[in-house]
Amino acid sequence: MRTLVLGGDGYLGWPTALHLSEAGHDVAIADSFVRRQYDHELGVESLVPVEPLHTRVGVWKELTGRQLSMFRGDITDAEFTYEMIRGFRPDTIVHFAEQRAAPYSHIDRQHAVYTQVNNLVGTLNILFAMADIDPAIHLVKLGTMGEYGTPNIDIEEGWIEIEHKGRKDVLPYPKQPGSFYHLSKVHDSHNIMFTCRAWGLRATDLNQGIVYGQQTPQTALDPRLATRFDYDAVFGTVLNRFVVQAVLAHPLTVYGSGGQTRGLIDIRDTAECILLAAENPPEPCEFRVFNQMTESLSVAEIAKTVAEARGESARIEYLDPPRVEADTHHYNVAHSRLIDLGLEPHLLSETLLTSLFAIAEAHKDRADPEAIRPWIDWRRTTNRPPLTSPSP
Amino acid sequence: MRTLVLGGDGYLGWPTALHLSEAGHDVAIADSFVRRQYDHELGVESLVPVEPLHTRVGVWKELTGRQLSMFRGDITDAEFTYEMIRGFRPDTIVHFAEQRAAPYSHIDRQHAVYTQVNNLVGTLNILFAMADIDPAIHLVKLGTMGEYGTPNIDIEEGWIEIEHKGRKDVLPYPKQPGSFYHLSKVHDSHNIMFTCRAWGLRATDLNQGIVYGQQTPQTALDPRLATRFDYDAVFGTVLNRFVVQAVLAHPLTVYGSGGQTRGLIDIRDTAECILLAAENPPEPCEFRVFNQMTESLSVAEIAKTVAEARGESARIEYLDPPRVEADTHHYNVAHSRLIDLGLEPHLLSETLLTSLFAIAEAHKDRADPEAIRPWIDWRRTTNRPPLTSPSP
Repeated sequence: MRTLVLGGDGYLGWPTALHLSEAGHDVAIADSFVRRQYDHELGVESLVPVEPLHTRVGVWKELTGRQLSMFRGDITDAEFTYEMIRGFRPDTIVHFAEQRAAPYSHIDRQHAVYTQVNNLVGTLNILFAMADIDPAIHLVKLGTMGEYGTPNIDIEEGWIEIEHKGRKDVLPYPKQPGSFYHLSKVHDSHNIMFTCRAWGLRATDLNQGIVYGQQTPQTALDPRLATRFDYDAVFGTVLNRFVVQAVLAHPLTVYGSGGQTRGLIDIRDTAECILLAAENPPEPCEFRVFNQMTESLSVAEIAKTVAEARGESARIEYLDPPRVEADTHHYNVAHSRLIDLGLEPHLLSETLLTSLFAIAEAHKDRADPEAIRPWIDWRRTTNRPPLTSPSP
Repeated sequence: MRTLVLGGDGYLGWPTALHLSEAGHDVAIADSFVRRQYDHELGVESLVPVEPLHTRVGVWKELTGRQLSMFRGDITDAEFTYEMIRGFRPDTIVHFAEQRAAPYSHIDRQHAVYTQVNNLVGTLNILFAMADIDPAIHLVKLGTMGEYGTPNIDIEEGWIEIEHKGRKDVLPYPKQPGSFYHLSKVHDSHNIMFTCRAWGLRATDLNQGIVYGQQTPQTALDPRLATRFDYDAVFGTVLNRFVVQAVLAHPLTVYGSGGQTRGLIDIRDTAECILLAAENPPEPCEFRVFNQMTESLSVAEIAKTVAEARGESARIEYLDPPRVEADTHHYNVAHSRLIDLGLEPHLLSETLLTSLFAIAEAHKDRADPEAIRPWIDWRRTTNRPPLTSPSP
């Protein structure tokens, strides 16, 4: 099976590429390296040092004998996208190649526009290239649980049967995304759903929970295979950020009361879910949606779990919430379809946290505590980082 | 009341601007004139000659003493948008300034990307400018009934109460748009809905049916005040196109069996609906949706109505459907909210058709029958006009 991983230099793209490669897929990685550029723009760095892609690909070859192909370019460039898909002829395209941080999309107008145009145009280019080159290609698209918002009814996997005034239909689940980034994913989902219907494409939309963890069996083989560990207020996801705060003996910063509930997933399960989706493709014309999460916890519970695992030294601080969201809400999410395909979830456990603490401990000298404090407020239209000059 | 009409040089923007001006609004018009550029690109023209905006504004001043302000520029240019809104300080922004033809968005990849980026970025710029300059401004945004698709349940006005597994919520009505253009409007709606919640903006989303007619009491005052009459396969809407075909003694071309049902609205009612929305603004934070249509007819019924009004000479021809859509389907649409505000609909009647025939008759020498035949197929990713060289 030939699998093209777009955004394969990123936090999840890289370990997924290795997992697919180990499973015997013929894997190509495409990346524009813009994720590394965001770090320079924001003045932050991955806690764990990350080798350049060509080094990582070389080490993987050296250790396993497996070759990963590389395409360097931006999928918003249609010519690049067409040439790559014509050249590699994938069976599956795994699409991580989007701006993926909600806070980043709320820095200001330019970042909101950039996020939506970048994500939307890249995805449109892929859809057109699939239709033109090979409509049988299976698109595995990364979405997010945040697309749903927090409705007062159970969240289903993409579709919902609605009975209304004596009639019934199965319709796309209504979405209430909570940031310009989340909105970009909803736009993508609508575009993909339409091309499945109009052009007979096939796609799996993975509404992913918040990913935690940093190691997979493959990245753990060699430090030069490490993936990113983002802990900053813009790209750091909640659990990973708490781990770094705990290791630095800083308070774990919870936004609001922490009553907001989130779907979570271990990084090893992310890679496995994508493998399962790729190896069990939908029918032509099918737009299917999986909720790619394994458990739900409130932000306060996540903080408590991390603090308890860390022991005495850890404490929790409650900050004014920078996001516009319900502090407490109903949250019951269907997420059985990946289990049905064979996923055996790694649930949040002290074991994992211990290993995460060890990783953070080993690199804590690289941590910049200033980078952790949130400076992007959803209610403002323009946000500037503290103590830095405005970006040009 | 100060009202800014974006896209005020267009088919509906112009008559709406005049209707608001006559009603006593202090009206400004903004336009990039890109709609006139599409005509050149496609090699077509409005059946009725249309004067340049500055001429029309001069005639309106001459006849009524009322001054319309003009802003020449593109709302995808944020600097232009901010300067205009800072300068004019509208109470209401009426937003027609989008690429509005579904077939145009299906010409090829470039036109799909252009349509979505153009519509999305223009609207984002307006939302940011409103939030930054005056969040009390009321946005009246033109959407389309085509955003809903054809679900097997009744279509409500933007929101639907869903009861699911013993719980209830009022959620955004699930949408299944049928073209890249319709998708762009759904993206806009999600973005607007979000900014109402996050920034306390207020907006009215008007999901408009297919508009027919070409004259309003104001445009009828002088031939130099005429608005466009599009009859071509790309920008011509169904009823207006049938009228031109009938006058040319050409067959009325119905796509498929004509069982597709559409919401319709008279051009005079469009202008009045926008006046009603502007003068009855929503509360801050409110995102309200009106279905701006007054009756439903199948395409075959529309053709039959036009043919019967025309008499003996008119006949109907059924073509292979170029769109991907259900040929017959349930269609029952709530559209009471504008009636509640006082709309008194002009329903489709022979009187109107007679006057439309007269307009088409007067200009039939300008009609190019070749321009009427559909050449854009939803199932193809690239469409080129017949008998012309490919666009550069």
